[in-house]
Amino acid sequence: MLSTEIKKRITSVVGHENFDDSKAGCLVYSYDATPQFQALPDAVVSPRNTAEIAGILKICYEYKIPVVPRGSGTNLCAGTCPTQGGIVLLFKHMNQVLEIDEENLTATVQPGVITQDLIRAVEQKSLFYPPDPSSMKISTIGGNINENSGGLRGLKYGVTRDYVMALEIVLPNGDIIRTGGKLAKDVAGYDLTRLFVGSEGTLGIITEATLKLIPMPETKKTMLALYQNLEAAAQTVSNIIAHKIIPATLEFLDQPTLEAVEEFARVGLPTNVKAVLLIEQDGSPELVEKHMLKIAEICRQNEAVSVQTAGNDSEAEALMTARRAALSALARLKPTTILEDATVPRSEIANMVKAINEIADKYKVKICTFGHAGDGNLHPTCPTDSRNSEEIERVEQAFAEIFEKAVALGGTITGEHGVGEMKAPYLELKLGSAGIEAMKAIKHSFDPHNIMNPGKIFAKESRKRVVISN
Amino acid sequence: MLSTEIKKRITSVVGHENFDDSKAGCLVYSYDATPQFQALPDAVVSPRNTAEIAGILKICYEYKIPVVPRGSGTNLCAGTCPTQGGIVLLFKHMNQVLEIDEENLTATVQPGVITQDLIRAVEQKSLFYPPDPSSMKISTIGGNINENSGGLRGLKYGVTRDYVMALEIVLPNGDIIRTGGKLAKDVAGYDLTRLFVGSEGTLGIITEATLKLIPMPETKKTMLALYQNLEAAAQTVSNIIAHKIIPATLEFLDQPTLEAVEEFARVGLPTNVKAVLLIEQDGSPELVEKHMLKIAEICRQNEAVSVQTAGNDSEAEALMTARRAALSALARLKPTTILEDATVPRSEIANMVKAINEIADKYKVKICTFGHAGDGNLHPTCPTDSRNSEEIERVEQAFAEIFEKAVALGGTITGEHGVGEMKAPYLELKLGSAGIEAMKAIKHSFDPHNIMNPGKIFAKESRKRVVISN
Repeated sequence: MLSTEIKKRITSVVGHENFDDSKAGCLVYSYDATPQFQALPDAVVSPRNTAEIAGILKICYEYKIPVVPRGSGTNLCAGTCPTQGGIVLLFKHMNQVLEIDEENLTATVQPGVITQDLIRAVEQKSLFYPPDPSSMKISTIGGNINENSGGLRGLKYGVTRDYVMALEIVLPNGDIIRTGGKLAKDVAGYDLTRLFVGSEGTLGIITEATLKLIPMPETKKTMLALYQNLEAAAQTVSNIIAHKIIPATLEFLDQPTLEAVEEFARVGLPTNVKAVLLIEQDGSPELVEKHMLKIAEICRQNEAVSVQTAGNDSEAEALMTARRAALSALARLKPTTILEDATVPRSEIANMVKAINEIADKYKVKICTFGHAGDGNLHPTCPTDSRNSEEIERVEQAFAEIFEKAVALGGTITGEHGVGEMKAPYLELKLGSAGIEAMKAIKHSFDPHNIMNPGKIFAKESRKRVVISN
Repeated sequence: MLSTEIKKRITSVVGHENFDDSKAGCLVYSYDATPQFQALPDAVVSPRNTAEIAGILKICYEYKIPVVPRGSGTNLCAGTCPTQGGIVLLFKHMNQVLEIDEENLTATVQPGVITQDLIRAVEQKSLFYPPDPSSMKISTIGGNINENSGGLRGLKYGVTRDYVMALEIVLPNGDIIRTGGKLAKDVAGYDLTRLFVGSEGTLGIITEATLKLIPMPETKKTMLALYQNLEAAAQTVSNIIAHKIIPATLEFLDQPTLEAVEEFARVGLPTNVKAVLLIEQDGSPELVEKHMLKIAEICRQNEAVSVQTAGNDSEAEALMTARRAALSALARLKPTTILEDATVPRSEIANMVKAINEIADKYKVKICTFGHAGDGNLHPTCPTDSRNSEEIERVEQAFAEIFEKAVALGGTITGEHGVGEMKAPYLELKLGSAGIEAMKAIKHSFDPHNIMNPGKIFAKESRKRVVISN
């Protein structure tokens, strides 16, 4: 609990109306989209501008109060769960697109802007902001930057990191810095911009961002290829890329996922096949046509039992929307849904899918797998029940083995969700102890009192998932 | 000078044949491509592998000996001048392309690989490594990564940073870490990969890199647009981008540069116009054709006096090679050539070119300007004579004002050359004192004894260029 003195000082910065330490108010922000993590903050604070954030941080720095920045809380790594209490910092007042600069192809935004709102705003000017996490209807750009969010278009267009050109940041001591600029090239010192992208709120608070935009592709087409053989689907992915074609999206869904999604979205997805590839290409009409023909040929060569092209834009949009709803669809199966994002080099997709299925069998748990096959970013998802501790134990063991397998195949424990508190115990698997020490040194240099989203990224102990509840 | 004990320990790691502390040997590595900087190292060491580098660093860490990693020394920021003595680390034995992975579209290389050799090697497999610094015939990939080199294709394809997927690094204490992987998506902790890209050898030694490749564009075309009005040329650049066309290259050369380049390269560049835009587009034949027609139209609308398309590949190649030779051509005019890389948002190109000419007049110095207009990265270049201290003083003042103007226009002091020792005094202009402090904290956390390329990036004093000679 915050002392009266601290409460008084914070409200003098943001006003009483933007400070909430009621039980009900705190309960709302005691969890995020990650199952199994819940903890009450001491207060929820909603600043209106950068100066107020600097004011809050100075107070928190002085009193060593944890600060947890939070957009819409859609993350899946317990990245915004206030597991050490302190202040949850909300960006509801800082949700404006400040500028769309058509000459420099940039958008400057506040962190609270909803991802899809930005995408729609720039589309109005025939511009394109590619990063499209599945949660984009509700996620915020600030959250996307802090987690370096990926999405379906990552294969061809890259991830959030590739679109952040400049940041305004409030450091833990209240200092305000600006990194980068509307500049395609800038090598003035260390790349602080990209150090902050994906830093999960552990180094400072991002208060403004300038994002790169690109011209809107002229056209796009969507294709569905059906398989009765998982490995043939995976092999198709490698073969498409090896033919020097980079599709805009190249998604994989296995049969259990297809069943759940079709049950949920009713868009006519087949449920009688072992796997589906959902493939989208964009660009000039001639190129899209040429690529789609070649991709169809490669699919058939790899035993696709059917290759269908979406008849029109709304049919294509329905397919993509259904795919984005996979988590929501799977979440209806059981009370608890654990969705991970183990990622491997794309040449290892077939091996990884096979390993996931073997691990699921070994621990007698159900794991549905879907994901961004083109960039090796899979989403093994387990519908389970957190009240069944015996099953949860097996689920945890299965995921631990999945992470180990991903790293053994040259992959990583998290492709796009972030480490947060959930995957912190596994980070050493990927980085080794020297890598962790290097990161800890950076953390300490920015945040000596460990007030910025404490408990995230760095685990107290390794290899065991930490579950904290309040 | 190194003690007999230290010398004995280092030679026990690399062998006598890879250790040179002769006067002649040290003199060769006492300078790089940057004028006005020279200092003798204590020894030149050529390790054969990562383990030897770790061994050397452990010794240097223990005795606090400066270590200056050096590729081909083509940098223009005194980034590899051993201004505080110590060891120059050469990569002549570590110059292999270890793997080209066609399934994951990656190349894994040692740091001493020559940039153009890599580009040619991947072209054999119809793959493309876009970063193309003008020095690419002699520069090394290790140097490119340490400086985050740009090049002519930066506008459309980005810079070195955008192509580094994984690094092996020896930290100052001799620990070896591996960052990233053959992964389009990886958010396991802070982005150490990109922190090291552009860190100018001040945080650790990069010993291996995995680079992203992309499919080779099907075709390309090259166009030359001539102007009698500098501002019209600059306006053309903005208009092309505003029409949602991103050319592969979009280069600007002013009349004095054209004269020098034509005198040097004899490719038929016009010397009777005020400025030239050299424009290249690549992609599918249909798209290239469509874009080139539209670009030609935009050039003419902006008062281009002539728009010519290269008749064939060899004519196009000759134009691009001539452009890449601009520094060599200008270097023939006077004994000393100072080439800078002040960079602005592309909407400010016209203002910046105008300001450079006004500043040159004010200080009565000759400044030729060329550069990557499409990404706002200009190269104001001054042919001068370092023996004429009065003139050099005016040159320094002119460049200080150019840096200030670039920052005032929302730009940066260096777009692609790096800070090194040369621009260190100006870094605060761009970053402010809080930004510098944040970077110093990172530096200290990796390199507490300040042995990694000391004197680079961080200046002893601000706003005054430090000239050190031995």
